Amino acid sequence: MINVAVLGYGTVGSGVAKILWENHSHVCRRAGEEINLKYVLDLREFPGDPVEKVLVHDFDTIVNDPEIRVIAEAMGGLEPAYTFAKRALEKGISFCTSNKVLVEAKGAELIGIAKEHNANFFFEASVGGGIPVIRPMIECLTADHFDEISGILNGTTNYMLTRMDQEGVAYDEVLAEAQKLGYAERNPEADVEGHDAGRKIAILASLAYEKQVSFEDISMEGITKITGTDFEYARALGMSIKLLGTARKKDGKVYVIVAPFMVAPGDPLYAVNGVYNAIKLHGDMLENVMFYGQGAGKEATASAVVSDIQDCVRRLGSHREILWSGEKAELGDIAEFPFRFLVRVKTKGADAASTDGPFAAAANAVKQAVDTSKSLAEFEAAVGAKPMEALKSADGETAVLTGPITEKKLTEAIASTGVDVIGRIRLA
Amino acid sequence: MINVAVLGYGTVGSGVAKILWENHSHVCRRAGEEINLKYVLDLREFPGDPVEKVLVHDFDTIVNDPEIRVIAEAMGGLEPAYTFAKRALEKGISFCTSNKVLVEAKGAELIGIAKEHNANFFFEASVGGGIPVIRPMIECLTADHFDEISGILNGTTNYMLTRMDQEGVAYDEVLAEAQKLGYAERNPEADVEGHDAGRKIAILASLAYEKQVSFEDISMEGITKITGTDFEYARALGMSIKLLGTARKKDGKVYVIVAPFMVAPGDPLYAVNGVYNAIKLHGDMLENVMFYGQGAGKEATASAVVSDIQDCVRRLGSHREILWSGEKAELGDIAEFPFRFLVRVKTKGADAASTDGPFAAAANAVKQAVDTSKSLAEFEAAVGAKPMEALKSADGETAVLTGPITEKKLTEAIASTGVDVIGRIRLA
Repeated sequence: MINVAVLGYGTVGSGVAKILWENHSHVCRRAGEEINLKYVLDLREFPGDPVEKVLVHDFDTIVNDPEIRVIAEAMGGLEPAYTFAKRALEKGISFCTSNKVLVEAKGAELIGIAKEHNANFFFEASVGGGIPVIRPMIECLTADHFDEISGILNGTTNYMLTRMDQEGVAYDEVLAEAQKLGYAERNPEADVEGHDAGRKIAILASLAYEKQVSFEDISMEGITKITGTDFEYARALGMSIKLLGTARKKDGKVYVIVAPFMVAPGDPLYAVNGVYNAIKLHGDMLENVMFYGQGAGKEATASAVVSDIQDCVRRLGSHREILWSGEKAELGDIAEFPFRFLVRVKTKGADAASTDGPFAAAANAVKQAVDTSKSLAEFEAAVGAKPMEALKSADGETAVLTGPITEKKLTEAIASTGVDVIGRIRLA
Repeated sequence: MINVAVLGYGTVGSGVAKILWENHSHVCRRAGEEINLKYVLDLREFPGDPVEKVLVHDFDTIVNDPEIRVIAEAMGGLEPAYTFAKRALEKGISFCTSNKVLVEAKGAELIGIAKEHNANFFFEASVGGGIPVIRPMIECLTADHFDEISGILNGTTNYMLTRMDQEGVAYDEVLAEAQKLGYAERNPEADVEGHDAGRKIAILASLAYEKQVSFEDISMEGITKITGTDFEYARALGMSIKLLGTARKKDGKVYVIVAPFMVAPGDPLYAVNGVYNAIKLHGDMLENVMFYGQGAGKEATASAVVSDIQDCVRRLGSHREILWSGEKAELGDIAEFPFRFLVRVKTKGADAASTDGPFAAAANAVKQAVDTSKSLAEFEAAVGAKPMEALKSADGETAVLTGPITEKKLTEAIASTGVDVIGRIRLA
């Protein structure tokens, strides 16, 4: 029998306990060992909850018990999770976690400590909730070089964007709704500004490129400026708008950004809606592979933590190598990575064209209206836009779909042609 | 240095050699060992091909070489693959394969032999080509009970259905096209009759339910009877038509079928188009999880075989338990599993309604036309169809969307009401 402990009896931690109890025989059979949840650590009391029998308030009780072989942490935040992880691993106790803050900041170091002590540090649930992606990257996608990892990594913002797109609900309204449903925090910054997705793409990029990609080095744009007009353009193009975390490798450098992207229907991320998450990888042999599922939620995330516990149990006494060194990856300046952009530009009274109808018809109508604008024509030439790729959705503005261009050059083209830019969104 | 051999230098086998050579340092680093491709077995000669240096024509050379630790098989078919696998495993040589015929028929037995000899039998590439699904099922999805596994498991038929849907190409024409492109065999039965998908869902169901689910016990309906009219109905419903292999668990029994299904937009399988494959699992904790990627193709499939080789190398000297016993799973009669059906029914001169326009409008128009048909109304009542769920797309016929009903009861309802059925498709 293997004794394990869970740190934190919140949403995920209580889910882990629930699965260990409810799916007990299944979980043990698949781990090859009887697993006993000996302790749950939480500062709170839970009168009447089955956890009472195993509840403790002091980490020392757990880490000093020689029977404990695996600890699963679901408290969140850097401290005391980091200290607890370190103390456990230094005693040879395997440690698994759903805590993306801990993994992003200390993953490389904790893997190193685990290796030294012949234990394991696993973190499947830290990215994509219940979606298996970390272990498949380590165990399955091992023959390929990956030039792209892109993910819808935050369920809250994906729910919001889906509602804005499908129901035409405005940003403020959908945020209030998401808060009411418990999808968004009262302080929603971590979600809507892309910080949560930023930590997750940092973890995935670190694993793919085997060096540290840090959250604080990543460009992040949130979804707070996305409006109904952006969705009108997206619909005219047959695309959807998704908040993506994306890492691209080019000429030995890694470029990482979190931002809203226009996603075309041929892209498997296009149809990932609501609170679902998905991670797409593009390899030199595999081409596109995608993992899809619930990116959050008590049971789904807990299921991934339990799978880590089971893997720790199966691997007791041996360390599974995970290639993620503490050395910083060489990050490129995202302003020098070529993307296609949809650029919204103010027009000078050229507001004759209709907003409705299919793309081609609208584009033709628009072209006639905007061809009067010399600076716009110059801008289109400068950014490699094809004439038919001018779109119009609202009075007094048009949009230009650029060719692949770096943000640096796009900014120069805007400055040199004097067009009045309302906003811009990258194409995935 | 670990010496390995590849059996068969066809599409997949040559892809495996290519990856072992071209991505050599990456592959070895991720395996934790130098991997040397010492032999490739093929009866043919390949003058001028780099394989010449390692080409052998006799399996004995490989299996009798004590330096060989891992063999990857990509020949296909039951024999001689089965004999080779057995001989290798009995010598403690780990064996991996992309061969679904071998895995479906002999998987349980070969896993047992591998266990006896402290070796491994891996088969990631046998289902879903390059998509990681076997190992994630064994290593990641270990906390959940799965009540459904459904997959688009055959790229050829998915390509054909996508073309029929998006371009309105007829079945015969799209089959000829697929044959010309090399997606379909000259004798396309294995693909279009669902046999290929049948072997793959048998493997997935065996792994999920830990007992033998055999190909020959599975109901299979192919796509040969799908017509443009079926796609008209699908479009009216906002659905797509996919050939699914699906295994459902209910009251301790496993129900397995390969058939065309109508798939709703909320289902992640809905938007899986072209040659892509995807496998969706529904667990009691995780809810839906989906794995997406290239289900065939030289490099993609070979990438999965190489990941198996790497895993065999990492696990040399230890057996990874895979729960798949030779005991037969208790299969239910698929005619007793409730599905919703779209049933196409001949109408008696009630051909007034238009085929175009959105669902609700069409449905109303149709209702007026078909309400004259007493037997149809009786049939609708018998199959739990809601009045608005009668659809019409062509002269002289209508379609009824049933409630959840077993095929057995559906057949009874057809017989007792005397409606004249043209065809029926299940809803996913």
